[in-house]
Amino acid sequence: MKLIKTPVKGMADMLPSDMRLRNLVLARIRKNYSSRGFMEIETPAMEHIENLTSKQGGDNEKLIFKVLKRGAELRRAIDAGNEEFADSGLRYDLTVPLVRYYSNNKEKLPVPFKALQIGNVWRADNPQKGRFRQFTQCDIDILGDETDLAEIELISATAGTLTDLFEGTDITGFTVHINDRRILAAAAVKAGFREEDLESVLISLDKYDKIGKDGVRAELIENGFSAEAADNYLGLYDGGDVSCEEFCDKIGEELLPVSVKDWLLEIMECAAAETGDNVTLKFDPSLVRGMGYYTGTIFEVTVDGYGFSIAGGGRYDRMVGKFTGQETCACGFSIGFERIITILKDKLQDTVKLPEGSTAILIDKKVNAEKKLAALHQAAELREQGLTVIVEPMRKNMKQQIALLEDEGYTEFLKIYND
Amino acid sequence: MKLIKTPVKGMADMLPSDMRLRNLVLARIRKNYSSRGFMEIETPAMEHIENLTSKQGGDNEKLIFKVLKRGAELRRAIDAGNEEFADSGLRYDLTVPLVRYYSNNKEKLPVPFKALQIGNVWRADNPQKGRFRQFTQCDIDILGDETDLAEIELISATAGTLTDLFEGTDITGFTVHINDRRILAAAAVKAGFREEDLESVLISLDKYDKIGKDGVRAELIENGFSAEAADNYLGLYDGGDVSCEEFCDKIGEELLPVSVKDWLLEIMECAAAETGDNVTLKFDPSLVRGMGYYTGTIFEVTVDGYGFSIAGGGRYDRMVGKFTGQETCACGFSIGFERIITILKDKLQDTVKLPEGSTAILIDKKVNAEKKLAALHQAAELREQGLTVIVEPMRKNMKQQIALLEDEGYTEFLKIYND
Repeated sequence: MKLIKTPVKGMADMLPSDMRLRNLVLARIRKNYSSRGFMEIETPAMEHIENLTSKQGGDNEKLIFKVLKRGAELRRAIDAGNEEFADSGLRYDLTVPLVRYYSNNKEKLPVPFKALQIGNVWRADNPQKGRFRQFTQCDIDILGDETDLAEIELISATAGTLTDLFEGTDITGFTVHINDRRILAAAAVKAGFREEDLESVLISLDKYDKIGKDGVRAELIENGFSAEAADNYLGLYDGGDVSCEEFCDKIGEELLPVSVKDWLLEIMECAAAETGDNVTLKFDPSLVRGMGYYTGTIFEVTVDGYGFSIAGGGRYDRMVGKFTGQETCACGFSIGFERIITILKDKLQDTVKLPEGSTAILIDKKVNAEKKLAALHQAAELREQGLTVIVEPMRKNMKQQIALLEDEGYTEFLKIYND
Repeated sequence: MKLIKTPVKGMADMLPSDMRLRNLVLARIRKNYSSRGFMEIETPAMEHIENLTSKQGGDNEKLIFKVLKRGAELRRAIDAGNEEFADSGLRYDLTVPLVRYYSNNKEKLPVPFKALQIGNVWRADNPQKGRFRQFTQCDIDILGDETDLAEIELISATAGTLTDLFEGTDITGFTVHINDRRILAAAAVKAGFREEDLESVLISLDKYDKIGKDGVRAELIENGFSAEAADNYLGLYDGGDVSCEEFCDKIGEELLPVSVKDWLLEIMECAAAETGDNVTLKFDPSLVRGMGYYTGTIFEVTVDGYGFSIAGGGRYDRMVGKFTGQETCACGFSIGFERIITILKDKLQDTVKLPEGSTAILIDKKVNAEKKLAALHQAAELREQGLTVIVEPMRKNMKQQIALLEDEGYTEFLKIYND
């Protein structure tokens, strides 16, 4: 009956110091978003298997932890021999559950609905350093706002929150990359691809950072596209940084309405005015974002010195309608919570220590009730003053006991003996 | 591809007002427990199926949501025909995971280790009003303290936290019921039962509140015990409230060492001194607590006017050793988080509203970028003053829009039009 000591594969136990950092970050996130009217909601960890496998989840649908049917239903499934053993699964993101939630509770929610979700998701991915099978996601979404105010609020709320999270660290700035799926589509058509090939073309373009221009060219040709289209296409992305105006002008008005350019320019102007000097807003015509459901603006945040994005999102105006049959425009921004934790882990050690003056009262085991009571009273009084006070029996190896308590951040030690 | 709108059976979507209450309660719980040196930890939602089915979970082991194996492992299980389809499951409590966590991380933790766990658990129970298949548990546990300081700290920490949670409500007090498994055992032997029948006898006694004295008597006899033993036994519990001294004296020193009586008396004396006038500490010789793993002191909290307990716990000195092979004494107290929420839902409506002065800025859709920017600046300035400010497009049905925002707690409305 010996238990298995380690957590299940790819999942992690959180130590007290981990939790102090996570709780600090979560409190700051909640404070920032709620001051802007984002309302926290929560959905169950499990969803109907039908909802999780509806093709909205992309590759994540291959990574579902499925939950076994129970009792008579499981028996029927086994006897039927069709191997349909699961009736539900653990959610792999917070977007599919949000859409279900919205269609279930719409009547009780304001329009537009500004949602904050903080919760765990599960993916049966190959575990790697820093990538877990259970991890926390932190999403804000605005449902029912078709104007660019949604984008402006999402960007400035996320930038404001990140600025607050990095306060007191040596991270002095970050970049918000912005693009639009409609620009990506027009650029592909301009180069000579057919509209129905867009998804495949974008999957290749998305690897630009990893495999470079030549790699993307080779992949496009390998996928059956002409060298001419590939060269036209990559030519559009040549020449490094380019402004939104320049890039849109390259494509031309007949493929890309002026309204799309104006849309992005207004978002960038307003968002820039609403964020501090630490935030760079950058038009990035090669930004793709993986998920297929985006329909308009897309964004991603990078921090100098780290090789990964720490937030991302965009507009997905058709997903809710596909699910519910009723069109609802939507736009979201997700903070990569675990990546933020990775970055802050080394930088906020002092902040997550116990408060100054935290006191340990160590009581000799032979102490009588009267002395014990006096010590407990003293602890209560110190707590009244706002201090953290732990009361515990003195161990034989008091030196080690005190060392471990010092590790946790205790600085004051009171020892109670019988006289 | 239409999705199923409702959550999976027996699980609940949390509305924004639900979340505000839950977050308020969680913040108070964290503040109280952490000021006493309880350290928050977290374990994954999933545990190895072997750990969940090790007979430590009692009846909860029948309610496990099992997680399906994946890929080649699932194929092997199907081909083997042994129906061992699951390699893990969702945790049904926080105690089994705590024991695993402790044996996995012991070297990094202080001794004694004071743990706070707040997390969801899952049970495939028959859903009922107020009973869900996913719910939040909130446990404090002290591992490695064999002295009564553990009990005293657990009781006063829990009582202090509950007092704080009920502040501002009409709940003026609650009762902490205390008993000891050693007293229950001695009373059964005194009445003429054999020690090996204790578990069965206690299962009947545990129903005293529900089925009364006659019901317990009938059940004991039905289970094959003599009417004489049953009558002796129930005679011990006759006569209503009884002090710890009186009850222990009835049993006598030969079956119940004086040290047990002294142990309980010191706990009650010290805990009473450490809790406010709103807390009644009561020796309750018929208190059993369901789980089989308790070895000593047990406790339970009831609130006047509610027919259920809101917290419970006790000492379980042998469970860690059974799991890890190395004896570690342990004692815990669990707050019934969902029950607290049920009680507070009607009582704290005002506290969970948005802060006074929360402002909605409604922007006409035809407004130009300049006016939009001015409105965003104004929002930022108001937020600097600590206000919650939401910015959103004005809807055609502005009356309904404002009504819904008022429901959420917004009191100020600014409307921005083009001049």
